[in-house]
Amino acid sequence: MNNSRKKYRNVVIGVDFGATNTRIGVVARDGKIIGKKTIPTYSTRGKKFIIERLIDELKGSISTLTLKGIKVLALGIGIAGIIYIKKGIVAFSPNMPAWRMVPLKRIVARRLKLPVFIENDANAAAIGEGWLGAGKGIRNFVCITLGTGIGGALVLDGRIVHGADGMAGEIGHITVNPDGPLCNCGNNGCLETYSSATGIIRMAKEALKTGGSSNLLTITGGNLEKLTSQMIANAAKSGDPISMEIMDKAGAYLGIGLADLVNLLNMELVIFSGGMLDLWDDFKKKVNMEIIRRAYNIPAKRLKFKKAKLGEMSGVVGSAKIAWNGLTKRENSLYNV
Amino acid sequence: MNNSRKKYRNVVIGVDFGATNTRIGVVARDGKIIGKKTIPTYSTRGKKFIIERLIDELKGSISTLTLKGIKVLALGIGIAGIIYIKKGIVAFSPNMPAWRMVPLKRIVARRLKLPVFIENDANAAAIGEGWLGAGKGIRNFVCITLGTGIGGALVLDGRIVHGADGMAGEIGHITVNPDGPLCNCGNNGCLETYSSATGIIRMAKEALKTGGSSNLLTITGGNLEKLTSQMIANAAKSGDPISMEIMDKAGAYLGIGLADLVNLLNMELVIFSGGMLDLWDDFKKKVNMEIIRRAYNIPAKRLKFKKAKLGEMSGVVGSAKIAWNGLTKRENSLYNV
Repeated sequence: MNNSRKKYRNVVIGVDFGATNTRIGVVARDGKIIGKKTIPTYSTRGKKFIIERLIDELKGSISTLTLKGIKVLALGIGIAGIIYIKKGIVAFSPNMPAWRMVPLKRIVARRLKLPVFIENDANAAAIGEGWLGAGKGIRNFVCITLGTGIGGALVLDGRIVHGADGMAGEIGHITVNPDGPLCNCGNNGCLETYSSATGIIRMAKEALKTGGSSNLLTITGGNLEKLTSQMIANAAKSGDPISMEIMDKAGAYLGIGLADLVNLLNMELVIFSGGMLDLWDDFKKKVNMEIIRRAYNIPAKRLKFKKAKLGEMSGVVGSAKIAWNGLTKRENSLYNV
Repeated sequence: MNNSRKKYRNVVIGVDFGATNTRIGVVARDGKIIGKKTIPTYSTRGKKFIIERLIDELKGSISTLTLKGIKVLALGIGIAGIIYIKKGIVAFSPNMPAWRMVPLKRIVARRLKLPVFIENDANAAAIGEGWLGAGKGIRNFVCITLGTGIGGALVLDGRIVHGADGMAGEIGHITVNPDGPLCNCGNNGCLETYSSATGIIRMAKEALKTGGSSNLLTITGGNLEKLTSQMIANAAKSGDPISMEIMDKAGAYLGIGLADLVNLLNMELVIFSGGMLDLWDDFKKKVNMEIIRRAYNIPAKRLKFKKAKLGEMSGVVGSAKIAWNGLTKRENSLYNV
């Protein structure tokens, strides 16, 4: 831990428990990150090993901070999966498939003798962006992660929408075409089957199979297994007709899904993040066209788009905010900082 | 006003400002309706006339109650349209199309010298059902009005979802088929174009135009303008193939829309109301099939369906609850009664 300053006497620690790496940040009440580090998650190892490794790391950080006269008041942890936030239980996590109903909050709290608060990682990232990032000061927004799949989080009236099982926010699994391709989730025609990296690659492969010439064959040397969404976006920019059509389709379906959200939630802002973030500018026009055409006028026109601002630190910052909120019993509230 | 009892010293008045009639109810803290009446809305008359008529009526009620030793503490008004609840302004109301930015809260509060709180009528009805009806004790539910169109209201974590412009909850305008029929709202393939009474009648007319024999021709005496959704539902029950197909289609699309809501909101309950409520049992099986097939397993299985319990009084009861909440500054909270 470094960069700590004397003036911060009280801090919390935010943990972003990722599939490969776990990010840890020491965060002051005003959101200042006064120290950070990244450790491996060891997600393929046993539950006990993973948790002990994290606890050891945190104990070390807390000791170092204590020596500097800085008190750690609480811990916030963001983790992928179905999280029962009130009970502090990880019901299921895709990163650690063997985990079932792990009382992570209780385990860590007992060992560190600190209040611990846990949250789904996408929600934690949304809280981070809402606190200090692209959603700062906005009470109604939606976060969309465009990557291999499409993830989401909903913030309405300044609070995360959890739903009854903490499973709300599955924006990638809105049905945008009821007879569309089979999705990993079992549904047909989910937004994710069109507008994710996987969806774009699938559409390109299908188009190339049914013939038609395309730069994509040259770019990949004929090996379509090498195809990436970035290649398709680049080919579209250079005028490749098949790629242009696919990018338009991906954008149009994203617009259809977003129009649903506009009519349902009347949010002010969509914050995009994820590995496909660079492709957003290629989608933008088509997305907007569909929203304007399909959603009600007033909420459609007020909708803004932004890219996430906190990057890889959104989860850490959001987890820290959850800890700060938890300390003041405002577990569900983003603002009133 | 009648049925008032001595034991209720303090009450509020709930007003459901409808297109044709306005319902007024005197409601105690525990939800007991100690008096009610219905007056014409006169929605085709001028703004001043409509409001003065309501104020006169309310003044009369308040005087009568005062004579009985009952104090009216506040007033809640539910009204269709775009309502800016914090400012107390009716931005637009479909029932009174000439109204634009009417400061209803201020006007009525000044004249009655009482705190006044206003809300969209569908939201008020949802609050009523959540307080004392089918949603009692449920923190996450969705209200769907099945009638000529499809209306909606969302209650998440015990609070109405208003969105940035108070326009959230347009469940009828989720796109369930992007290339579907043109909707009144300008979009194609909205849920409303399939699963409302209008949608069912449209599908029947189309099916009959393209030939095919059906009992519907006999029932209507060949005049398809007489067709109602109830006729089609009845014909389906008696085995008419075209009607059966249409009812299945209406149910399936309702299921597609609800699966979107399940994945997005993970709500516990859907409460149905509206003129087509009796047809719900005909849809139920098909709706469930689509939800189970399309939505995530855990939230799909937990979802329950109920019919609204408060009937025509849901708006009055909900408006009264808004007044009670407003008095305690909990304008947005349904519960903690």
